[in-house]
Amino acid sequence: MEQRLSLVTLGVEDLQRAVAFYEGVLGWKIAASPPGVVFFDLNGVILALWPHRDLAQDMNAAPGTTPAYPGYSLAHNVGSIEEVDAIFATVKRHGAKIDKPPAKTSWGGYSGYFSDPDGHRWEIAHNPHWTILKDGRIWMKRDG
Amino acid sequence: MEQRLSLVTLGVEDLQRAVAFYEGVLGWKIAASPPGVVFFDLNGVILALWPHRDLAQDMNAAPGTTPAYPGYSLAHNVGSIEEVDAIFATVKRHGAKIDKPPAKTSWGGYSGYFSDPDGHRWEIAHNPHWTILKDGRIWMKRDG
Repeated sequence: MEQRLSLVTLGVEDLQRAVAFYEGVLGWKIAASPPGVVFFDLNGVILALWPHRDLAQDMNAAPGTTPAYPGYSLAHNVGSIEEVDAIFATVKRHGAKIDKPPAKTSWGGYSGYFSDPDGHRWEIAHNPHWTILKDGRIWMKRDG
Repeated sequence: MEQRLSLVTLGVEDLQRAVAFYEGVLGWKIAASPPGVVFFDLNGVILALWPHRDLAQDMNAAPGTTPAYPGYSLAHNVGSIEEVDAIFATVKRHGAKIDKPPAKTSWGGYSGYFSDPDGHRWEIAHNPHWTILKDGRIWMKRDG
């Protein structure tokens, strides 16, 4: 698994309130984002704001469940479905907790989640709409 | 506040166990790190593993307190003490919760923490031992 972080996703209660903070208070500019999620393109990593209910569902967690829904996730994007499967094979062999086995997603990609030993959730994803540049950055096509 | 993310810090129960996972399972290489914390230099952002007790203390939180200690933090590093103060003045004026007013730190820097509207903790820090490159990446001097 390459030494890269693609996204940090912050779960939020109210997307408009969160955007008002990052845009209005911190002065950041929103990148083109599909409905229901807001992306900020930072220095080599994307910050995503996403309602708690969607993030929790995406990682097979639920607020109040055990292990607790952590409210955020880290994502590592790769260039193919095969690479996603290969990473899951490795971490599974080493006994990592698989929160969500990799599967096709509603947004047209392929992803799964595992936990590190302290319960920090990592999503390993292939998003066919995004390109991974040579320096590890994500290039999000502007049409979606 | 520039649109940059400098560090993601994951609180861990057992530093050796966490390092064994990131190094041994994911295959990542550790960067030169001071005692008690382990850095990984990713694509434009640093991932830090730090014991929960240290991270909680650093952000003026404690496991079990309200608002709950979240177990992770996001950091935005800047080039001077004055820039740290300017960012805190802005977010305070907009009513953000200040978890720890900026102050000199034990590691020779200057930092503070605020929360976004959903309680995600941001540290704004000046670390005189680190250089912020033009593209927003951090260059950690190798002597400490």
